[in-house]
Amino acid sequence: MTEAEIIQRFFKAPAQALADPDVLLGIGDDAALIQIEDGQQLVVSSDSMVIDRHFVAQTPAYDLGYKLVSVNVSDMAAMAATPRWLTLNLSLNDVDEVWLKDFSAGLFAAMARYHLILVGGDMLRSTELNLGLQIIGTVSAGKALLRSNAKPGDDIYVSGSLGLAASAVATLKQERNEHAKLTAAQAAALYRPPIHIAFAQALPELCHAAMDLSDGLLLDLQRLLTASGVGAVIHCEKLPLAESVDESMALSGGEDYALLFTAPAAVASKLQALATAEGCVINCIGSICAGDELRLVRNGQSEALPSHAGFDHFS
Amino acid sequence: MTEAEIIQRFFKAPAQALADPDVLLGIGDDAALIQIEDGQQLVVSSDSMVIDRHFVAQTPAYDLGYKLVSVNVSDMAAMAATPRWLTLNLSLNDVDEVWLKDFSAGLFAAMARYHLILVGGDMLRSTELNLGLQIIGTVSAGKALLRSNAKPGDDIYVSGSLGLAASAVATLKQERNEHAKLTAAQAAALYRPPIHIAFAQALPELCHAAMDLSDGLLLDLQRLLTASGVGAVIHCEKLPLAESVDESMALSGGEDYALLFTAPAAVASKLQALATAEGCVINCIGSICAGDELRLVRNGQSEALPSHAGFDHFS
Repeated sequence: MTEAEIIQRFFKAPAQALADPDVLLGIGDDAALIQIEDGQQLVVSSDSMVIDRHFVAQTPAYDLGYKLVSVNVSDMAAMAATPRWLTLNLSLNDVDEVWLKDFSAGLFAAMARYHLILVGGDMLRSTELNLGLQIIGTVSAGKALLRSNAKPGDDIYVSGSLGLAASAVATLKQERNEHAKLTAAQAAALYRPPIHIAFAQALPELCHAAMDLSDGLLLDLQRLLTASGVGAVIHCEKLPLAESVDESMALSGGEDYALLFTAPAAVASKLQALATAEGCVINCIGSICAGDELRLVRNGQSEALPSHAGFDHFS
Repeated sequence: MTEAEIIQRFFKAPAQALADPDVLLGIGDDAALIQIEDGQQLVVSSDSMVIDRHFVAQTPAYDLGYKLVSVNVSDMAAMAATPRWLTLNLSLNDVDEVWLKDFSAGLFAAMARYHLILVGGDMLRSTELNLGLQIIGTVSAGKALLRSNAKPGDDIYVSGSLGLAASAVATLKQERNEHAKLTAAQAAALYRPPIHIAFAQALPELCHAAMDLSDGLLLDLQRLLTASGVGAVIHCEKLPLAESVDESMALSGGEDYALLFTAPAAVASKLQALATAEGCVINCIGSICAGDELRLVRNGQSEALPSHAGFDHFS
């Protein structure tokens, strides 16, 4: 197959199911062409996945496609933006039609869930499978939610429950990457984390700061604290642990793709009402304070941070 | 080094030398935030490079950074767009500070030449070096130049001279990838192809269709003909061959990153005047005709197309 044939067979939107009048020109020319409205800002991000680093070779291709979209949508939610358009950089070591069919099906299923359009990209030959995805969203001018604006006194919230995706990774490690050993809940948490776009888009009215959880609560929260120039106290007993999950998975496991956000205590009941209305579970797990320290507290007693705080690809 | 340290040391713009008031938020949050003006369309593209496929391991890192930007800018020129913002997906197999310093210097040098801002991206560990770059540009509504609008009777033009980059690739192959064996002109053609943005931006007033030449004139022209539903005649004696370059390099060598465009014969002198004003050499190499055939003509005689027409990563 030529590159054009691969694109035609696997990466053209199914029957333009998601026609977006703003996409004036999609896949096929030197670039895609997108109409943009007045008063809108673009939100641009990119999150990629490499075999043997972010996923094992045994991962079902459908799940890979679905997750690749989800992790990028998660960055848009963390900015309170509307995810809109994708470009794909697909580095393949061979042309396996079954794999391409499943991967593109997962990609398009997640795209349908989040109302996204694939507008272009690049296809490459490589030794290892490398899945690059870029996402462009929009947000009304002045409404983006940054990680650098947390204020002392803010409550700290997370969406969903934590640790189940990391427990799935641990199960795969124990079970020689046999995906059949995952529970349905583990597979869903690892490959199809629910991103609550509508909830996230309403947050700028109530919240000060937000980011998404990808590398573990402690590491990601530390990044938010550094960006905001503040400290925090986390109450271990308030962590929303997923069922049968160790606390360490919730603190440092990563792969949650949940929302981490901070808001003044005064809006707590409004936040809970909003979450309920949008079908999203949120929990307050601590608070922002002055200084630059991240402290763990259990039943009123300070506790040492675990030595392994989370995942950095380079440290 | 952590990912944050690598970004801080090598990928923050040098002293914000290229401050762009439209970049409201750059590297460091979940996504970048970009202001967009009314009446503008976004132009989005992506072109990546993988070791041993697009470049050899011996390639100087500076040249890689420079070329990675150039090939993406070339797609913007082919749409008559203004290149604006980049995201980088950098998959590294180790953290070599000298390599990172040189690569980022080349990247930023090309960005300075074309007035671009790096707004975000992703950094990954991988076995092989995989350089993903995405570019976002803008164009006034209705002004983008597509490859699908060539008309019978149009003249076919190329910018610059052809074949020198392909001859550089051939030299490297003969000389065991010893870059010192390249002439200065070969190295410039392969790694720093000049992209004539201002010239390209003026083309929509005069031209019908355009694309950039990356995989070889015959293969790329065939794509333009297919997209436009037309045929073409190319006159071999009119090909602007670079010095000491075989005609086959110009027809099928690839890597030129020149502009291929079509325009009615009536604007020929205006086009030449524009090219001269912008310091760009252009040559008419043939014409568009009805039908779907691509024909080569030499001194009035039809000639068979070469069997190897150009480069497709997957065919």
